[in-house]
Amino acid sequence: MKKILTLFGLASLLCSGTLADEGMWTFNGFPSDQVKEKYGFTPDTEWLEHVRLSSVRLAEGCSGSFVSPDGLVMTNHHCAHSCIEQLSTAARDYVAAGFYAKTLVEEVRCPEIEINQLTKITDVTARVAAVTKGLKEKEYNDALKAEMSKLEKECAEGTEIRCDVVSLYHGGKYDLYRYKRFQDVRLVFAPEFAIAFFGGDPDNFMFPRYDLDLAFLRVYENDQPVRLKHYFKWSGEGAKNGDLVFVSGHPGGSSRLLTVAELEFERDFFLVKRQLYQAELRGLLTEFQNRGAEQKRYSNGLLFGIENSLKARRGMHERLLDKRFFAMKVASEKAFRRNINSNPEWRKAYGGAWDAIAGAQGELKKIWAPLTYLENGRGFSSTLFHIARTLVRSAAELPKANEKRLREYADSNLPAVRQNLFSAAPIYDDLEIETLTFSLTKLREELGVDDPRVRKVLGTFSPRELAVSLIKGTKLRNVELRKSLFEGGQAAIEKSDDPMVVLARKIDTDARQIRTRYEDSIESVIKKNNELIARAQFAVYGASIYPDATFTLRLTYGQVKGYKDARSGKEIQPLTRIAGAFERNTGRDPFALPASWIKAKDRLDLNTPMNFCTTNDIIGGNSGSPVINRNAEIVGLVFDGNIESLGGEYGFDPAVNRAVAVHGSAIEEALRKIYHAERLVTELKPR
Amino acid sequence: MKKILTLFGLASLLCSGTLADEGMWTFNGFPSDQVKEKYGFTPDTEWLEHVRLSSVRLAEGCSGSFVSPDGLVMTNHHCAHSCIEQLSTAARDYVAAGFYAKTLVEEVRCPEIEINQLTKITDVTARVAAVTKGLKEKEYNDALKAEMSKLEKECAEGTEIRCDVVSLYHGGKYDLYRYKRFQDVRLVFAPEFAIAFFGGDPDNFMFPRYDLDLAFLRVYENDQPVRLKHYFKWSGEGAKNGDLVFVSGHPGGSSRLLTVAELEFERDFFLVKRQLYQAELRGLLTEFQNRGAEQKRYSNGLLFGIENSLKARRGMHERLLDKRFFAMKVASEKAFRRNINSNPEWRKAYGGAWDAIAGAQGELKKIWAPLTYLENGRGFSSTLFHIARTLVRSAAELPKANEKRLREYADSNLPAVRQNLFSAAPIYDDLEIETLTFSLTKLREELGVDDPRVRKVLGTFSPRELAVSLIKGTKLRNVELRKSLFEGGQAAIEKSDDPMVVLARKIDTDARQIRTRYEDSIESVIKKNNELIARAQFAVYGASIYPDATFTLRLTYGQVKGYKDARSGKEIQPLTRIAGAFERNTGRDPFALPASWIKAKDRLDLNTPMNFCTTNDIIGGNSGSPVINRNAEIVGLVFDGNIESLGGEYGFDPAVNRAVAVHGSAIEEALRKIYHAERLVTELKPR
Repeated sequence: MKKILTLFGLASLLCSGTLADEGMWTFNGFPSDQVKEKYGFTPDTEWLEHVRLSSVRLAEGCSGSFVSPDGLVMTNHHCAHSCIEQLSTAARDYVAAGFYAKTLVEEVRCPEIEINQLTKITDVTARVAAVTKGLKEKEYNDALKAEMSKLEKECAEGTEIRCDVVSLYHGGKYDLYRYKRFQDVRLVFAPEFAIAFFGGDPDNFMFPRYDLDLAFLRVYENDQPVRLKHYFKWSGEGAKNGDLVFVSGHPGGSSRLLTVAELEFERDFFLVKRQLYQAELRGLLTEFQNRGAEQKRYSNGLLFGIENSLKARRGMHERLLDKRFFAMKVASEKAFRRNINSNPEWRKAYGGAWDAIAGAQGELKKIWAPLTYLENGRGFSSTLFHIARTLVRSAAELPKANEKRLREYADSNLPAVRQNLFSAAPIYDDLEIETLTFSLTKLREELGVDDPRVRKVLGTFSPRELAVSLIKGTKLRNVELRKSLFEGGQAAIEKSDDPMVVLARKIDTDARQIRTRYEDSIESVIKKNNELIARAQFAVYGASIYPDATFTLRLTYGQVKGYKDARSGKEIQPLTRIAGAFERNTGRDPFALPASWIKAKDRLDLNTPMNFCTTNDIIGGNSGSPVINRNAEIVGLVFDGNIESLGGEYGFDPAVNRAVAVHGSAIEEALRKIYHAERLVTELKPR
Repeated sequence: MKKILTLFGLASLLCSGTLADEGMWTFNGFPSDQVKEKYGFTPDTEWLEHVRLSSVRLAEGCSGSFVSPDGLVMTNHHCAHSCIEQLSTAARDYVAAGFYAKTLVEEVRCPEIEINQLTKITDVTARVAAVTKGLKEKEYNDALKAEMSKLEKECAEGTEIRCDVVSLYHGGKYDLYRYKRFQDVRLVFAPEFAIAFFGGDPDNFMFPRYDLDLAFLRVYENDQPVRLKHYFKWSGEGAKNGDLVFVSGHPGGSSRLLTVAELEFERDFFLVKRQLYQAELRGLLTEFQNRGAEQKRYSNGLLFGIENSLKARRGMHERLLDKRFFAMKVASEKAFRRNINSNPEWRKAYGGAWDAIAGAQGELKKIWAPLTYLENGRGFSSTLFHIARTLVRSAAELPKANEKRLREYADSNLPAVRQNLFSAAPIYDDLEIETLTFSLTKLREELGVDDPRVRKVLGTFSPRELAVSLIKGTKLRNVELRKSLFEGGQAAIEKSDDPMVVLARKIDTDARQIRTRYEDSIESVIKKNNELIARAQFAVYGASIYPDATFTLRLTYGQVKGYKDARSGKEIQPLTRIAGAFERNTGRDPFALPASWIKAKDRLDLNTPMNFCTTNDIIGGNSGSPVINRNAEIVGLVFDGNIESLGGEYGFDPAVNRAVAVHGSAIEEALRKIYHAERLVTELKPR
């Protein structure tokens, strides 16, 4: 293990004398022996299968768990925020007031939530290798994508079975993940935003913490709650200091295996650009909220997302700017390359990969602006533009053979395309104008006033003028119109004079051109050479390493444990109490407890644990993951990592990296005594 | 010269075969021989004195020139923007409509502009050295500041003579600069903002360019225009491609002599923090402008300042992120240190300076947030707070002996303190609330919710709540109240219950504490060791190097010359024509030519040169500098540098670094045919 820790972690095995609780392990590669060695408990196959089938993914980027035989799903409030916002109106604001369906019939369908349950994992590395073997970069990449689409199509069934080929170790291994897909997902319960996100942005990624970042959803089939065999039971006790705990969830992505050249690109280019964009947008939205209560209500989720991401990127950037950390990465790559080069066969097979990737990073910088702004949509931040582009591209892509399409239009992905395209979620003109104006302004700024593509988009218009005319002029708010354009295919699209469709059409060739250049001469180089590096790693380190996160199901182990705060030098206790929330209450947003809490104070056991932190290795995407004990019972609900965990993107620091969770007892206490949600409590803890 | 170029510049003498036009030279250290060698013209003592006395400084951060015997001053519109805005009202918007005083009596006094004319330079290095010799860091710094205040007081006379001790080469040399100070400065002419800043932020720092970034002011004494012996005459011809030109102005600051540790601090910490702050504020103000036409009018100058600074910082940051450039800096420092260490005497005297400075940078990081937010005022962005703090500190400082005061309250600086404190410039409540809310939010973010100083400031208030109560509650809008508090001294301040005074009082001890820590254990270390490095440089390179910019008068030489654009590979011609402005006109802000131009189009000679670029080595602060020919006649007006010049902060690149100026002929053409400013034309070009 020593080699692995040198490569990925910050702590040395020799120093601490114990293994770090590091690693986001796949379910078919979980190191049960390591857990046994450290904690005396061996998760067996049956245990792993039960946990896997009880865990779920929210397809837009979160985790969750089944917590009853009737399809009840527990996740975070911030994972269900967009649904709660979409179901709200000015007169009936569920974000502010919370939501509780006292009866089954009161549960309301979320327009855009899809839930996936991982039912099977199949190794398809050999099949992928068979079609890509010996191919040059572009051909390699084309063949790879085609085979992935093919495999996914073979595996999928109707809209109910979703299949994704997952590239692990950046191409070292390919697994086919088969999911049960649920698109009828209904809102059951959400507390008030004020307690779900108590402390707001100032306390985000901080610990100690006092949040009830909780929501319950339910999956339906044929208008009935789904009956489940596998789900997590509720623990009677909750988590205590020192307890062994597991987190089963979907970490979105990590960058621990990146090369130094890739890390430099992130540190010196990408993260800087990204943060500056988000900081400006944050300022814009903050002031937009002053336009009125309504604007504040419906821009809240967006602003939260921006602030959350900005703070996360800040933490990541700081880790890369840490000279000591970066020097370690450089030294470790150097040692690894020396190792590879010392063996003539390895040298020949893998030796050139790092320089090839470094070269691709240089090329990426050159086309980053048009790629990001034209193709990846940052220049057109508007739901209505997104709809227009999906219509334009669907018309062009769907007539093609499945393997020839842009990946996001492959058959296996069409249910998601349809769900978003035909969503009845409300769209707010002034917010659309605001974000579109901003993004058009940045498009002009990043590509330059005189770029022909910018001139094509703007003409003589100012960004605001254009945004206003597009948003006011388009009819795509009408879901029936979207359906008819979608069904009408290429002919309907070509005939449309809807201004947003016209814009999406007008810029499509340029956007595709830059994407092709990226895929053929950059992505392909990175992928092919990353596969080589992965194979080199297997050659040197064997299969004992875990892959970077890929928004697929992973299992981590760890324990409830405090840490020493680096700045203050203080020892941070791992559990907070409900009393602490009342102490922190100032009555002013974001430190204002909701009225329901103030009213219930006397009834509450203030000594109930509220939040806690654990050594589990998690990252963004893990939000909503269950924290379970060795009996696979729920003891908590992950909703955050501490500020030190943000650098975990690049390397895990066992001394201070902590997952942050809502304590099971707080959930129970709140449901019972504040929200009087007896129906839910009974479902979670049947007598 | 080879050594110098290796140390400071980017080009090698050996490569180009000619000297680069690099260097922001002092008037008492100007390399006339170099100019002769390259251009065959020797500026002599008389020429230099005439140019020096014809150049002026706008004390808040710009340059300008005397252009008539009657005190007429030419500068940039953006240097006079704040005055033009302050003199405007909703009904009479001089920023939008422009301003022209047809007669002398119509000239209007600017509330806050101070103009300085450099009349004498005296070397005081020996006097400073005598009091600081052998002292340790804190004592060194205290003695240095006391001696500077003393020297300045001895030299100054009333409010009319201003004296500043200038630290050159980061402490290698001290000169006493004696200025004639003018505080009665009146607005004479300004064109419309739309042409002064044609192309707006997108074209800012770009070339080719089409701006008339021009304003005329006039200095008065005893209510009469000042009569001058020295001023620049107007050239009959203007500048042509290849012409030798000089720029005499006040570059604000540069960082070419910084150590690698200091540059790393800038690259990895300071510039990141600064840009993120400004980007967010930019977004906020952009949306604030949507509140209405009035808000747009009075937040325009502020937004311009933020965008301008942000773009400049972006360019600076990119230069430091350029791996090749940074490696050159590292190598050059390494070679220099090796050189120093090879001589035992030098080693003993100077060898430890670099590590000491690096240590101080580490300490600075630790206290950067409270220093910046509490002491440097970033946590309290409000004119009214600034007034309150000035009152609180004046009361505490003025009773002390001159040498014991905070430097900005020394006698020599009091006229500037008074001018700002008693300014009748309008203050807008909603903009004050906006910026104060933002800065209080960032204060909380950077220091942390639980920092006792943050708790002291906010109490249980939210940032917005506190900002509203302060701005609505304070009476400091009333200039008479400010005067009475200022005259009333400590007793009046202690008795005041004005909420802004109360806040300034409440936080003053904490702010001073962090400043003291900075001055005593960081600034002092940096200053003392920078002096050592400067001496080491003199030892190795002699006196042939120029000092970093210090917002004092400098002279640069160069020529009208195009360059090759690195991105597009295109050759950029050095002169643009008035016709180009019409071609670029879209009719939409910021590419909308004003009505006066459209109307005058037929009368204009469209072939008239509009803007031009030169190889002169300039930087922020040089805005408003005259471009003169060898006869010391005006041929242009510096208003910008190209995007490549932004990296000039850290090193001059002769291939692409360009100053950007309004052409003299465009000024004449516009004054005559668009603005019909006959009085001005006659004054500039008497028959």
